[in-house]
Formats: sequence, structure tokens, C-alpha cells
Amino acid sequence: MQPRSVAVVGASEDDAKTGAKALRCLRQSGFGGEIFPVNPGGATHIQGLPAYVGVAALPSVPDLVVVAVPGPRVPALLEEAAHLGCAGAVVLSSDVPGSALEAALATARQRGMRVLGPNSEGFFLPRSHIAATFAPVVEACTAHPSPARRSRRSVAVVSQSGGIGFALFGRALAAHLDVHGVVTTGNESDLEVLDFVEHLVEEGSAGVVLMFIEGLQNARRFAAVADKAAAHDVALVVMKVGRSEAGQRAAVSHTAHLAGADTAYDAVFARHGVLRVADVDEMMAVAAALSLMPPMTGGRTAVVTTSGGAGGWAADLLSAQGLSLPALSPALQDRLMAHLLPFASAANPVDTTVAATEHHGRAMLAVIDTLARSGEVDAIVVNMGLSAKGRIVGMAPVLGPLLAECGLPVLFHSHILPLEENLAALADIGAHGFGSFRACALALDALRRRGEFLARRAATPPCVTRPRDAAPLLHADIRMDGGILGEADTTALLSHYGLPVPPSVLVQDVDHAMAAAQGMGFPVVLKIQSPQIAHKTEVGGVALHVTAETLPSAFVQLMDNVRRRAPHAQLDGVMIQKMMPPGHEMVVGLVQDVDFGPLVMLGMGGIYIEVLKDVVFAPAPLSHEQALQMIDSLRTAAILYGARGRPPADVDALARFICTVGQMGLDGERRIDQVDFNPVLVYPRGEGVVAVDALVAMVHRNADEVAQ
Amino acid sequence: MQPRSVAVVGASEDDAKTGAKALRCLRQSGFGGEIFPVNPGGATHIQGLPAYVGVAALPSVPDLVVVAVPGPRVPALLEEAAHLGCAGAVVLSSDVPGSALEAALATARQRGMRVLGPNSEGFFLPRSHIAATFAPVVEACTAHPSPARRSRRSVAVVSQSGGIGFALFGRALAAHLDVHGVVTTGNESDLEVLDFVEHLVEEGSAGVVLMFIEGLQNARRFAAVADKAAAHDVALVVMKVGRSEAGQRAAVSHTAHLAGADTAYDAVFARHGVLRVADVDEMMAVAAALSLMPPMTGGRTAVVTTSGGAGGWAADLLSAQGLSLPALSPALQDRLMAHLLPFASAANPVDTTVAATEHHGRAMLAVIDTLARSGEVDAIVVNMGLSAKGRIVGMAPVLGPLLAECGLPVLFHSHILPLEENLAALADIGAHGFGSFRACALALDALRRRGEFLARRAATPPCVTRPRDAAPLLHADIRMDGGILGEADTTALLSHYGLPVPPSVLVQDVDHAMAAAQGMGFPVVLKIQSPQIAHKTEVGGVALHVTAETLPSAFVQLMDNVRRRAPHAQLDGVMIQKMMPPGHEMVVGLVQDVDFGPLVMLGMGGIYIEVLKDVVFAPAPLSHEQALQMIDSLRTAAILYGARGRPPADVDALARFICTVGQMGLDGERRIDQVDFNPVLVYPRGEGVVAVDALVAMVHRNADEVAQ
Repeated sequence: MQPRSVAVVGASEDDAKTGAKALRCLRQSGFGGEIFPVNPGGATHIQGLPAYVGVAALPSVPDLVVVAVPGPRVPALLEEAAHLGCAGAVVLSSDVPGSALEAALATARQRGMRVLGPNSEGFFLPRSHIAATFAPVVEACTAHPSPARRSRRSVAVVSQSGGIGFALFGRALAAHLDVHGVVTTGNESDLEVLDFVEHLVEEGSAGVVLMFIEGLQNARRFAAVADKAAAHDVALVVMKVGRSEAGQRAAVSHTAHLAGADTAYDAVFARHGVLRVADVDEMMAVAAALSLMPPMTGGRTAVVTTSGGAGGWAADLLSAQGLSLPALSPALQDRLMAHLLPFASAANPVDTTVAATEHHGRAMLAVIDTLARSGEVDAIVVNMGLSAKGRIVGMAPVLGPLLAECGLPVLFHSHILPLEENLAALADIGAHGFGSFRACALALDALRRRGEFLARRAATPPCVTRPRDAAPLLHADIRMDGGILGEADTTALLSHYGLPVPPSVLVQDVDHAMAAAQGMGFPVVLKIQSPQIAHKTEVGGVALHVTAETLPSAFVQLMDNVRRRAPHAQLDGVMIQKMMPPGHEMVVGLVQDVDFGPLVMLGMGGIYIEVLKDVVFAPAPLSHEQALQMIDSLRTAAILYGARGRPPADVDALARFICTVGQMGLDGERRIDQVDFNPVLVYPRGEGVVAVDALVAMVHRNADEVAQ
Repeated sequence: MQPRSVAVVGASEDDAKTGAKALRCLRQSGFGGEIFPVNPGGATHIQGLPAYVGVAALPSVPDLVVVAVPGPRVPALLEEAAHLGCAGAVVLSSDVPGSALEAALATARQRGMRVLGPNSEGFFLPRSHIAATFAPVVEACTAHPSPARRSRRSVAVVSQSGGIGFALFGRALAAHLDVHGVVTTGNESDLEVLDFVEHLVEEGSAGVVLMFIEGLQNARRFAAVADKAAAHDVALVVMKVGRSEAGQRAAVSHTAHLAGADTAYDAVFARHGVLRVADVDEMMAVAAALSLMPPMTGGRTAVVTTSGGAGGWAADLLSAQGLSLPALSPALQDRLMAHLLPFASAANPVDTTVAATEHHGRAMLAVIDTLARSGEVDAIVVNMGLSAKGRIVGMAPVLGPLLAECGLPVLFHSHILPLEENLAALADIGAHGFGSFRACALALDALRRRGEFLARRAATPPCVTRPRDAAPLLHADIRMDGGILGEADTTALLSHYGLPVPPSVLVQDVDHAMAAAQGMGFPVVLKIQSPQIAHKTEVGGVALHVTAETLPSAFVQLMDNVRRRAPHAQLDGVMIQKMMPPGHEMVVGLVQDVDFGPLVMLGMGGIYIEVLKDVVFAPAPLSHEQALQMIDSLRTAAILYGARGRPPADVDALARFICTVGQMGLDGERRIDQVDFNPVLVYPRGEGVVAVDALVAMVHRNADEVAQ
């Protein structure tokens, strides 16, 4: 809703003051409604407009109040505005006292007034002609308004940081993008980034949302907002900082140890097709591509270049990003050469030589058109020097319609430092000059990932599994020590979920051990059972490869070891477990993320999991397809599909196992903290999987909770 | 040597002609010597200068001839110039007939005339006021000459591609770098890139050389030139394209299979401290850092920022590059806070708030100075908005001397799109505004790698091992089939080099097998020996874990397998080898690179080597320290140093093994093509290594060579 009247509280004639800047920004934005400067000083006019001593003194209730007064005065002002019936307030002030603010926000909630900030740099919507900010970029871009841009999707910036938000906005304008506006949320005492993302999606005013966040107030809401964005074909591009912070979690499991500070964000972003970027160049390249071009349906890329050296350079960077440069068919090469000089090359890269830019780029245009219609590539990268004046303007009458009709991305790049004039001329016809071949590669990668996400989303119904009746076992009076679930309870939990485990029997003496082992078949494993012994191997409490001959002595040895090394442990007996034949060793884990809830981990097993770190995380619930995608995304996935002549593994059974672990994580979200299945043995196709060992760490509950 | 007179052959009044452009570039360069336009057309003047119909008609012999005539006329012109006694020729023409050119170059060599090109875009040395090129950038940069820049080292561009060379030159100027000049070598019929690099190093005119290459004419020479550059403290920064090409080699060994098209370049660059970059942004960032700043002696980095959001963002990108952001000591934080407002933060990142930029950046300058003197960090990244006019000019009187005195790198960045004015003002005081935090991270990484290289070079004498008397065995009438050296010859070769192998004895029957096995101790391995059987396992020709009980039947079974599956193979007997206890499984390999000679490979072994690809290559010879560095550079190196409670491995013995393999590669360069030692078992420290299996592929020699 567009406000019809705005009061700027703290408005001033003193250019150094935030209130003076805010009033000037609003006026310069071309705002068409009423503007009320407010300052208790009693000036009759401020910046040429009639001024008022307080919001209560205004001739009418403003829709929006922009607050630029010292922090301590903010709560009372918000109370007053809420009582008057203002719809919204933007608090630019920083040092606002917390408790008074809380009370004022409660009033605002009661009265239906929404608050942005405090410590926000506000917002600016150039097309709606409204600014509630003191950012200098408003002055610059209203003084020289950029021409209306053609795009498929306009770009909006939503940022927690004011400085970065307006910096990204300014850079997007300088990159000639079609920019809808910017909002910065500061301390997010009321409105937060997801409110604005959701609003932009519902309003349909932006097709690409660039987000800069340090964390989310309400991470669980993210999935719903991202889903809505996907349903409305709005692309989310996120720069999330804080990746380098050390994790806070006490890690008893491999899974928790391998989950970094940002693992959950990465996993949730990947699930919802959110494109995470690392730096501003990447963000601008991705924004330009998504704003101007269709998603890619494959990775086949043609490079067209006036410089041979640049062709090899582009090929290297595109290949490094996983794009392919297919050899063009002889027939297509012939059609291309018809437009080129004999010493040009129509292989891929297509080296047109600089002659192709002559006569308003006649040959270059023919090459682009021929490639676009060929069906042999999914995107085209065109490199030509854009340092010559008028180069793009000369090509535009043909190039513009050509690009508008062609259904695949065409990216432009200049190895020579380009003239701004040519970059602007590209923008005028809905194209973009990318700043480096790396930027081209990142842009194409984003278009391909976007295309893959949309295709996957169309093909795969979202996994709607919700927590079921939580596993009854988790509510029973389970026994644990140091947070670790005992082996018997663990076995019961696993069998409740139908997770395959080796046959096992708990026994108290050698005779029962022998009988149990004969029942399941040799060889077997013996494991001491005690709530006080979490790490059995360290006290000699495990015997492997036990045969009928060695069982009696192994049993005695094991009991003896434990009595010597853990004399005070209460022994429940010895677990006799069938020793399973070797298979692919994988690790499946579960960890409860404090922000996003249960995350499932999958990794290659073996003793080097912590060194190789070939692991991948995904949020629960997972569909079977999502579990298969998880498997495929391992670096070592090829091993499961039968590398080096070994038979292909039962990835379907592994996927089912992963899905079930996710379900268990949802069901037990308030009780189960971390789980390792290490190893899960994966057998050849059709022969299933088995979890040989399980570590289940329960949530620590304090006495109060237990008493409830 | 600076030419005193230059003839431009093909000079013209027609602006579209290369010769016209070349004459104009030379005149605009401010060349102080004589300029002779030459054109057979008979014009008396060209571009206002007296013109001549041919080089023979000139009043004096020109030092340099710039050739811009149609290709077919080039050879005769070069002959003429050489006979006249010209010192050099720059051939801008492209389509020069090959055989006639060869003859002309022979004459040039006889007469001592050096030739650049053909198909070169020539060179431009703005400070020496000479241009032999038609590149448009000459006009632009002579029209607006950049001011003299302060730097520690000036920057030169040497490129095979003309388009890229002059593009890099233009970008370096636009980045306000201290640029010495550019030369582009085209087809390199005579002079090649290494000639110019060596010349720049010897002349001392550039301290940073930016190279763009597609390959080297004489790769073996590279090491010597790079050594000379290192000795003169000249840094080489290389963009080498062609990384994505598929390897050409027929790979019979793992080693050859894992060596990509560019592995040798990477290995040689790493050895010689050459910084390889992937894109132009990275090249410019690295060039700026090396040109303006001292190398880093550690990775501790402070981030100073006026925007809190930007601080986290910088921290992420720097950490991702392996730099650390140490917590600052409480005492240092107190000293910093003395300059800052209470709501600033002196943790690292140091969030100064925008107030620090007021009063000509007084607080910001104090923070930088305090950090630079603290001894707690090795570099400082300063982020502040550079969109305000006069920001750097206002700080320069204090900032300039501060930077000149401080002994560590200080990098500037602006999250807001910076004004050119501020970037130029930074250049004026010998500083640089980097375009992104990624650029800062890459620049610091380059300074750190440079520092590490210089320290390593100072501490470690270069390995000067040269090929010794080639191993006599390689000259004997060795037996091989399909290029694979037989096992007996392999064993002899390994023992010649003292490479540790398991005890082994070749036997013909069961009785001798039993005696041999008893002599070395059970268990043993049996392997069939036949020149026709390269892959023994596939014909059932290997028996493992053989004990005294199983040896007789295993021997019979093995002979039976082979007789059935390889009935025509000539059997030499059965090798009885002691079965070695398990150890860390590594792979050591050797491959002869067609350009650079022997490369040694080291990788983690096991059946997944081709999936994990944790391998590293280095050129032979290697010193012990270089072999240890190779071990440390594996991703999985931690495993060897005792991960997960296993004892540390004998890395010294492994390093000795690697060095010896390198020596063998040098000695056998013309005979040994590829070698795999797979696995090499590495035992705990002090217990050595053993090569359990070796595959030696010999160079195929054709009949002519054998006959010689």
C-alpha cells in the first residue's frame, strides 16, 4: 500500500542531521503525497515546507512516520503515532532503550501499526517515488534517474544491513539493472526480511530478490516464504554472512562435528532453489542473468569471440564451472563459416576475428542468430571489444529483436575494458555486458541451477510428511547416560522405524552366547552392554570376527577386560550380533539444527570421514527423490554406482533408509539431539542396507522439564 | 636497447589500414628518434612526414622495422632489412607464407636481426616513448597520460595473444597501476615470451610480469627464466589458457590417467613461485598487491570497516581463502577504542562506524596506525565507503606517510560503488582500492604465497641433481611387451635404485616355492610371471594370503587358471613374494611430460584413487624438503600424521622414496614413460616404506630409433 502522507520527525535545516537528510531524500524521490516536517523546535518552515512541533499537531494523521530523533525519544513517539492511527513507522534512530521499545511495540501491535527498525537505513522505491532513508545514493540516483529498463523480472534488494543494502542497490543501478527498490531492516524489532520478501512476492513487483542477511529471526518461516517465491516464479539470491563462525554445538557425533555454523542454511537454500552467492560481483552477475534471461535447460554453451586468446580463456572458466563447450556439427560449422573470413574458425569457441564487428556487426549478428537457432547449444557467450564508440548502438536495430525472439541466454563480455556507453546500450535492448568470464560462468551456472530447480519442482511433488505420533519409545522411561541412549533402547527405536540392523541378542553367559550365535550363524561380534560405557572399544569391550571356536575365550576375555578397565560399570550383559559381510561403508546421521530443525547427513564412511569430509546435509522431511539427489551429490557417488568394476550398490534401499531417518528426526525433534549410523553397509542392488552401529544422543533436559 | 630510428613499412594516410595506425601510434607515443614512413606508392609525405618507397631508399639504416604489409610480401622485406643491418623487426602482418618466412628468418639469424611475430600486435612502452603496434589503446592512453605512480615494483604485460595483451595493459592502466609496458608475441617465429620476460628481469624495468600464454615454445627453458626472476625478486603472474583440453596421452598407468593437460604447468609454476591466476579480476588484484605491497609473513588479517555487515562479509571471504582473523588482545582493543565511539567494536573485524571517516578520517587513520604497529596482524583490510568526494584526498597527508612507513600490506575496499577520484587518490599515495572482498582475499593469498615462496627459497637450496649415468639396466636388452617392463627387470631396476620392495624369489615348481616361502616367512603372495600377461589378476594369476598349508594347492590352482585363460602365454615361472603387513596405502608415480620432462606423482592409495583424486604432482628433481612439502600438500595428509589415534607414518622414508623416483625419472627420461608404485605401504615412523607392486611402462621406440 502506497502511503498518501508521510511525517518526518526530526526534520531539520541542518544538512548534517539524519532528519534533514531523510526529508531531503523523501522530497527528491518525487513523492506525490503530503509531506509533514516535524520538529519540536517550533520553526514554521523546514526545507521550504510548513513544519509542525509534533505528530499530534499535524493537520491529518500521516500514513507513515519516519523517525529520526535521538533513541531515547523513540518509544514515546511510536506510542503517540500508534494511538493516532498511523499505519507504519520507519525508525532510523539507533540507540533506542530496549524495554521502553518493547512496550511501544506492544501498543503498535494492538493498534495495527507496523514498525521498521530501529537502526534501519529505511527504504527507497524509486518507481513508487517514495524514500524513507538518509542514504546518499538517493540523491545521486534521483539527480540522474536511470532510464526505464527492459527485463523479464525486476530486481529488489532486501537487506538487514543498511550500508550493504544501499550499496547493493547502487551497484545494481550502476550495472544498468531493472531495479524495483531497496529495503533495509536493521534490528528487526517488528518487521523482518521475510516480511518484505513475502510482500514483494505477493505484490508481484520484483522477480529477483537480492537478500543480504546475517541470520533469520524466524528461520522456520523461511521454507514457506521460499515456497511461495518458487510458486510465483520469483528467484531468491542470498548473500548470508557468518559462514566462518565456529559452530557452537557440543559435538558427540560425527554428524554434529561435520555440521558447520552455516550447514543448515546451505541445506535449506539448496532444497528451495535459493541461489547463495559469496561476493558482490557474483551477486550482480547472477541478478543480471535471472533478471534478463530464461533459465537454462542444459549446460551446452557456445563461445563466440573476436579474439582467439579470449576464446581459450572463456572455455577454461566455463568448463571449470561445469559447463560444456560441445563441438559444433559440421553442417552448423559450414553455416557459420558462410558469414566469416577463411581464417576464422567455426569450432567452439567460434573465433570470428575482429572483421565480424565491421558493418554494424553484420557477421557477428549472423553468427549469433545461426547459433541461437541451431538447437546445438543452450547458451551463447559473445566476447567482443566494447571499447569502440557506437559499437552496440550500431548493432542494436538487429540485435534487439534477435535477442527478444531467441529463447536462450546470450551473454556479452568485452576482454578490453568496455565503454559505459556500450554497456548502457546493451541494457537498452534487454541484454547485459558481464564484467569477466568468471561472471559469465557464474551467471550461466545460476541459470542452469535455476532451470534444474524449476524442472525438479515441476516433476517432484514437495515432500509433505509431517511429524507423526512421536515414537512411543521416546516417551517411555528410556535409560540413558551422558545423553547417550542405551543399546537396548536404541535397538527398540530402530526396529520401531523398521531400520535394518543385524540380528542381535543380549545374553548373560557363555552358554547363551553360544546358543544365540549358532542361531544367527557365525561369525559374530560381542559387545559389552553398560550404561556407563559409551565407547566400548576403549575398554576392550568389543570382539570382532568371533567364530564357534573362539567364542568361549573371547567372551571371558571381554568380561575380564571390562572388569579391569571399568571396574565400577554396571554390566547389563553382552550383546551377540551377527557379523555382517562387507559392503559399501556409508555414514547416515541426524542433527537437530537450532534454527531449522532436523537435518539428515549422508557421507562416505570408513575411518577417514573427518579427513575427507565428503558429506552432505538436507533438511527433513525428504522424499525418495530428494534422498537420491542427496546420494548423487556426494563427491564419491561414483563409487556407489559401480566404480572399478564393483557391482552397483542398492541406492534405493539407502534412500529409503535416509528418508526414514529424516522422519525419525521430525518425530523426535524435542527428544533426539544427534544420531550417527556408522557404518551403514550398502549391499549390491536388491540386497539392501544394514546399520551396523548406531549412536543416539538425546536432548539434555533439566530438572524442571523432567518434573513437568 | 632503445632504437634511435624506426621505419614503418606499409605506412599510409588511410586510417583503416594497419600501417596507418602503426605510424600514428608511433608518433603519438612521443618517440624521440627518427621515423621513416615507407610505402611503394611513391607519396612524398605520409601523415606529414617525408615518405620513402622502400627500406633501401632510406637515408640511414633504421634500428627497427615495423612491418604492416600484406603477408606474402613479408619474407622479402625481412631479407632486405636483415641485409641492410636492421637490429629488429616487428611483423604485424598475419598471413605470411611459412616456407619463405623460414628462409627469411634464417637470414635474419645470420645477420643478427631479431623478429617479433608475425601475427603480433607489437609492443608499447609508454615511458620509453615507443610504440610498434596498431592497438587503439595507445591513442587513448597517450591522449590522457596517467600520472607517474608510486610503486615498489612496476608492472609489465607479456602476452602471446595481441588482443588479450593490450586488453590487460588497458585494464592495468585503468586500475591505476604503475605500468611499464606491454609486448605481444603472436606466432613466435623468432622471439618468444620467455625472451621478453628474461629481458625485463635482466633490465630491472619491471618487478611484476603479467603473462598470458597458451603454451610455451620451449618449456624446458621456463625453469631457468623463472629462477632468474626469483633471484632478481621479480614476481611472475601467469594466466595460462588451455586448462580444459583433454589430455592427449595414452594412459596405461594411474599416474598418466590422473595427469591432466595442464598438470605439468601447475607443478612447474608451483615449484618456481609463479602465481597462476584464472581470471582478469584476479590478475589485476594480484598485480596491484605485488606491485604496491610487501609479501606477507603470516596469514593474520585485521578487517577495519565502517559498516558492520561488510565486516562479516569480508571475514567470510578472507577465511574461505585460508586467512585468519585473530581476536585482538584486550590491550590492543583498549587502544583502538580510545579512538572510537562507545558503540563501535574493536573486536576483529573492527567496526569503527561511519563516524571514523569524519574530520578527514582522524579516527580511521589512528585505527590503521595502531593496528599496523601492534604486531598482532600481518595485513589490514580497510573497508569504507569511497563514494564521497574528497574522502581520500582529505586523508592523504596523513595516510600517505603512514602507509609508506608501515611494513605490512594495507588494502582498501569500498562496499559502496567507489568514485574513480578516490581510487586515483589512493594510487597517488601508493595504495590501491580493490574491487571486491574476493579481490582482497586473492591479493592477500598471493602476497602470502609470495612470502612463503621467498622464505622457502631462502631456506632451501635448490635441488641441483642432474641426470646421472643413466641406469645401466635401461640400456640392456630388457624384455618388455606392450611397453610394460617385465617383473624380473622391474625388480632389478628397483633394486638398482634401492627402492624397498618385499623379498621375492622366482620359482618354477611347488618345492622351490615352499622353500622360498619358508625362507622369507609366511604368509606369501604367488604371482604368475609372463611377458604376455600385464594384468595378472584378470587371468587368476595372483594368490594372496598364502600359508604353508595352502601353498601347494594355491600353486597348482594358479598354474591351472593361467593355462586355461591364457593358453598361449609363455610362462617364466611364479614369483613368491612376502606378504607385507598392512600400512598406509599411498601411490607414487612417474610420468614424462612432453614439455617439462619427468613429473613425480603422490596420492592417497586404495581402490578409490581415481574417484577421490587426492594427488599432487611435482617436477623432478626433488629435494627432501620438496618431497615433504609434496606430502603436506595432500588433502589427506593429516592421515599420515596420525589422524584418529593411529601412529604417525614414516613420512621421511616416503620422502626419500619420492626423491629416488624423481631421480629414476631423470636418469631414464628417454626410456621410461610411466610408472605406478601402487601401493607403497608406509609404516609407522622409523619403520620405512615398501613398494608392493610396480608398473613400469617404457617409451615405445620405432624401428628407426632401435636401428640407430
